[in-house]
Amino acid sequence: MLFYYLNLTGIFFFTLSGSLAARDKKYYHDYFGVFFTGFITAIGGGTLRDIILGAYPISWIEDGNILLSIIGAFVVTIFFKNYIIKLRRTLFLFDTVGIGIYTILGVQKSLEHHVNPFAAIILGLISAVFGGVIRDILINEIPLIFAKEIYATACIAGAVVYVTMLYFNVDSSVAASVSMALIIIIRIISVKYKLSLPKFDFGNETKD
Amino acid sequence: MLFYYLNLTGIFFFTLSGSLAARDKKYYHDYFGVFFTGFITAIGGGTLRDIILGAYPISWIEDGNILLSIIGAFVVTIFFKNYIIKLRRTLFLFDTVGIGIYTILGVQKSLEHHVNPFAAIILGLISAVFGGVIRDILINEIPLIFAKEIYATACIAGAVVYVTMLYFNVDSSVAASVSMALIIIIRIISVKYKLSLPKFDFGNETKD
Amino acid sequence: MLFYYLNLTGIFFFTLSGSLAARDKKYYHDYFGVFFTGFITAIGGGTLRDIILGAYPISWIEDGNILLSIIGAFVVTIFFKNYIIKLRRTLFLFDTVGIGIYTILGVQKSLEHHVNPFAAIILGLISAVFGGVIRDILINEIPLIFAKEIYATACIAGAVVYVTMLYFNVDSSVAASVSMALIIIIRIISVKYKLSLPKFDFGNETKD
Repeated sequence: MLFYYLNLTGIFFFTLSGSLAARDKKYYHDYFGVFFTGFITAIGGGTLRDIILGAYPISWIEDGNILLSIIGAFVVTIFFKNYIIKLRRTLFLFDTVGIGIYTILGVQKSLEHHVNPFAAIILGLISAVFGGVIRDILINEIPLIFAKEIYATACIAGAVVYVTMLYFNVDSSVAASVSMALIIIIRIISVKYKLSLPKFDFGNETKD
Repeated sequence: MLFYYLNLTGIFFFTLSGSLAARDKKYYHDYFGVFFTGFITAIGGGTLRDIILGAYPISWIEDGNILLSIIGAFVVTIFFKNYIIKLRRTLFLFDTVGIGIYTILGVQKSLEHHVNPFAAIILGLISAVFGGVIRDILINEIPLIFAKEIYATACIAGAVVYVTMLYFNVDSSVAASVSMALIIIIRIISVKYKLSLPKFDFGNETKD
Repeated sequence: MLFYYLNLTGIFFFTLSGSLAARDKKYYHDYFGVFFTGFITAIGGGTLRDIILGAYPISWIEDGNILLSIIGAFVVTIFFKNYIIKLRRTLFLFDTVGIGIYTILGVQKSLEHHVNPFAAIILGLISAVFGGVIRDILINEIPLIFAKEIYATACIAGAVVYVTMLYFNVDSSVAASVSMALIIIIRIISVKYKLSLPKFDFGNETKD
């Protein structure tokens, strides 16, 4: 039940952040473009997770409340966009809360489908980031997962902590809360202090 | 039966429009590149629809006639390309007929899989436009669905009309014909008169 | 059994070539970026093949050895990257061996799922090239399948030979070895002698 409402909340936040992602692009989007990027951002990661798991029916196909959450986020986008956009930090927070929730939901659903913990962690990451990846590809941006600050790695850290806590029989609500908070905190701190992973040194780049 | 032949017709038209989409790109494509973009355009949307529905086996895997339609369109492309390319409008028409047919086929197949009408409308849209979306991503174009003129919205309008007519017990052949015609007419009119959806106003774009 | 170890070998080589694909990009990748592109390159094609076939569970979800092969390739990448990168030819060979193995594995798995030979050949091609296609889209490169030299066509040739040999009751290990070798040889020769498919002549490119 907790996970059900968390899912709707994640969908709502992802739609908000996705709908507004186009605002920095040179070419303006019309209403359809804005809604489409919001929709893809919201359902992309979970849909890919469900398809890889073979977890049919896909959640947004079966559960009308997911489409309602998306429509609700569109309405909020339209009526409060001037307010929302002023707060650049708020936009960033929407996405951060979204990936926090979605990583843990993805791990949880994968474990329910008897997937091994390593694959479950990867599927948690995919749930969280792939909606944004598809959105960024559609609007021809370098995907946010390749951004300088720590992003995907925060999701992986949270997923590892979640799986570990479950292994030690921590209550799943507690484990979920702690690991979601961890993802959100890592992401916020890394953006605030511009922390990034070490670069992968390809050497002197001479070409033979 | 009607829907079966419509499917083959849609596949044929999508292959034609997809094969020729590369002609405006700076780098020339070889025969494989042209065929591959045609193939992806033709089967991309329907494949994604079937995967999301879990409607296995995927149609082109099971039904050899679909691959034959694609091969037929390739043969036509090779032998009549000079004739076809001269008629820019004809290329546009191929795509327009394709999305008209594929939207309604997608809605119909989704309803047969007991999907709710709202999800069925979205799946109709996905069927129609995602082959082209994948093609445009592959050749690094801004996807046509973000084009200025009305495109995806025409599909949505046709899908809504189709679902509504079925709800009022209109015969499915009649409903399909009317709503396909509607999609094609909206698209043609919007291109002819350069009609577009209202832009989504992101405000004064100041960045805090 | 042969096919099982070939799969792990293909995964290993694809991860190596994928991890190192980012080195020529202007923006440097961090450790996550390098590993993510390696992972996607390794599992992308096979995952798409399994999803289209409906062959659940997807292999890397079920078989932990696949994730171990990927991790092994990451370790090799980190410790031997200076050595590997110096040998540009070696990188090219990794990818070539990968597509050789994966094409035939893809055809084989498709035939086991009772797919007709034509669809099996297409699925063999998809298995081999789509991991790289997704990687190239992620790092915003023109997909390698559109490269000047013969690439995808080598896979198709090998797949056709494999299906034909099976049809004439050649032992599957022999058929697999011959057709993998064929793919690798065609690819090497076409790069060495800069062979390419004939360009598709779009005519005089005048726009009406």
